[in-house]
Amino acid sequence: MRVLIIGGDGYCGWASALRLSERGHDVTILDNLVRRRWDRELGVSTLTPIRSMAERLRAWERVTGRSIRFIRADATDYGALCDAIEESSPEAIVNFGQQRSAPYSMIDRDHAARTMINNTLCNLNVLWAMREFAPEAHLVKLGTMGEYGTPNIEIEEGFITIEHKGRRDTLPFPKQPGSFYHLTKVADSDQIYFACRVWGLRATDLNQGVVYGLETAETSLAPELINRFDYDGVFGTALNRFCVQAALGHPLTVYGRGGQTRAFLNITDTARCVELAVESPAPAGTFRVFNQFTQTFSVLALAHHVERVGKTLGLNVRIDHVENPRVEREAHFYSSLNTNLLALGLDPVLLDDETVASMIESACLYRERVDRKQIMPKVRWKSDRAVEVPAQETAV
Amino acid sequence: MRVLIIGGDGYCGWASALRLSERGHDVTILDNLVRRRWDRELGVSTLTPIRSMAERLRAWERVTGRSIRFIRADATDYGALCDAIEESSPEAIVNFGQQRSAPYSMIDRDHAARTMINNTLCNLNVLWAMREFAPEAHLVKLGTMGEYGTPNIEIEEGFITIEHKGRRDTLPFPKQPGSFYHLTKVADSDQIYFACRVWGLRATDLNQGVVYGLETAETSLAPELINRFDYDGVFGTALNRFCVQAALGHPLTVYGRGGQTRAFLNITDTARCVELAVESPAPAGTFRVFNQFTQTFSVLALAHHVERVGKTLGLNVRIDHVENPRVEREAHFYSSLNTNLLALGLDPVLLDDETVASMIESACLYRERVDRKQIMPKVRWKSDRAVEVPAQETAV
Repeated sequence: MRVLIIGGDGYCGWASALRLSERGHDVTILDNLVRRRWDRELGVSTLTPIRSMAERLRAWERVTGRSIRFIRADATDYGALCDAIEESSPEAIVNFGQQRSAPYSMIDRDHAARTMINNTLCNLNVLWAMREFAPEAHLVKLGTMGEYGTPNIEIEEGFITIEHKGRRDTLPFPKQPGSFYHLTKVADSDQIYFACRVWGLRATDLNQGVVYGLETAETSLAPELINRFDYDGVFGTALNRFCVQAALGHPLTVYGRGGQTRAFLNITDTARCVELAVESPAPAGTFRVFNQFTQTFSVLALAHHVERVGKTLGLNVRIDHVENPRVEREAHFYSSLNTNLLALGLDPVLLDDETVASMIESACLYRERVDRKQIMPKVRWKSDRAVEVPAQETAV
Repeated sequence: MRVLIIGGDGYCGWASALRLSERGHDVTILDNLVRRRWDRELGVSTLTPIRSMAERLRAWERVTGRSIRFIRADATDYGALCDAIEESSPEAIVNFGQQRSAPYSMIDRDHAARTMINNTLCNLNVLWAMREFAPEAHLVKLGTMGEYGTPNIEIEEGFITIEHKGRRDTLPFPKQPGSFYHLTKVADSDQIYFACRVWGLRATDLNQGVVYGLETAETSLAPELINRFDYDGVFGTALNRFCVQAALGHPLTVYGRGGQTRAFLNITDTARCVELAVESPAPAGTFRVFNQFTQTFSVLALAHHVERVGKTLGLNVRIDHVENPRVEREAHFYSSLNTNLLALGLDPVLLDDETVASMIESACLYRERVDRKQIMPKVRWKSDRAVEVPAQETAV
């Protein structure tokens, strides 16, 4: 299948691009490499020494004999995007082209605006360009489980049937996004659903959990294929950050009480889920939502897991409860369905001691690349006005 | 109260600004006058000869002795917006600063993108500027009943309590916006709700129905105060358009079967609702949603009303069912609450024969200003791919 991957230079995009190429798909990456610029802007860096796109693609061809085309372009540039779509004539378009850090979007107004324009203008462009040049293609869009927030009811996959005052309808599941970044994902989903209803486009929205892990079968085929691994306070996500902290002897930074429960998955499963979605396109006119995660953990439970495995590796691991920079509930109900991808054949890679150990060991390997000043969170959600997160309703 | 009105040059903004000034509030209008540029871009014009902002404000001061300050600025320019907020030190900010036509947003990608950036970047700017310079001010934001779409359950005011699998939560009412314009309004509401939760801002989202009517008590005080009145296929809304068509002897253009039921209100009530919201601010940290309409009608019923009144005025009125340029249900359940504004004291101006007659008579007065080529809808929602609007679920 001809697949255009927007944002194929990022953490999930790169792993997915290699996976789809390995499966025999004809892959084109469109990326403006802005993720690397954001690192430079913030003075942070991936733990791992990632290579230029040219080196990456040469290595991939050398070890597999497969070639991936690369178009350096910004998907917020509508003309450039249309050219790329006309040129690559995709049967599937996978859109990872997004600023994906919640803290980045909360730095200040400019970062919030940049996130909104990058993400939602890109999304809008993709929809109009598909309408014009690829109306039969299947859009696979990366969303996030964070769109749902933490409702006190079970999270369904995109839609919920509501009975209300003697009537019934199946409606979009209510969203409560927790940052300007998450707000863009909700806006994107709404736009895509609209384009499917009105223009008959076909799309799959992958509401992804927090991704962890470094290697996939494909990225470990050559050193030049190594993926990025973020540990800093802006781009680093919970489990990856904890592993680096364990490797450094830095206390694991649990935000607040750590009772925040989130959905997680291994980067290998990210690539596998994208593959499953691409290979089973949605019917025309259909907006399909898959909750893309394999397990849920509280942040504190993850920290304890890393602490335990770290100690078996002889490391001195300690947990610190730091002031929560976000505004979020630290104790809450959390339950979500994820049956759609399992039904398509996902066989999850579950989190075990071995995975945690291998992540800590990778972190040890690149320990000297770490900038310790970048570990602690600096971006705060709150303004000076005090905010209390309201308590949740209890079960009926 | 010091009130900053963003978008005070538009149809609803102008009527509301005069009303608030009449009530003794200290009003500043911020507007970039872009609505007038959009008219020129499309080659359309308001039926009524509106005056420059300078003439408008001079006339207002002449007849009432009250002055309204005017800042010509674009609210998508963050610096300019911050300056205006610092300068006017508002206790309430009313945000009408939006591209408000669904057809305009559907013309092509550029108009969709322009609508998104104008509306949602402006909204984002207002929130960050309030956080920085006016955290105690009350935001009154114009939303639309169109955010909800036409669900098969009763529409609540912003939030709905859902019981699901033995648990319960009160969550944002699910939205199904029907154009890129409506999508921006949903994104705006989500951002405002977030800013209230996280920064403790206070806001009222006015989900307004379709507004009709020309005069309010204030706009009729002097000829220079006349409000705009749009009848064209892009900016003209159902009832106003029908009245102009009746005046011209042009068939009333009912889209499709005309069973589309929508919520309506008189422009006098728009101004009155904004006044009620401004004068009863939301508590800090609260995102309040009011459904701002007074009656619901099917489009066909409105056409029949205009036909009947037009005939009593001796006009030759005929109804034409034209192909629906939108993708929407033409027969559906529609019921919505609107109790919040009634509880605050709204005493609705209901649609009667006299109002319809006066609108038709106004249209007759300016008949020679009408460009007949602009009456029919030209912007189509559909792409070439056929789309069937799915049937609604039936009641339980």
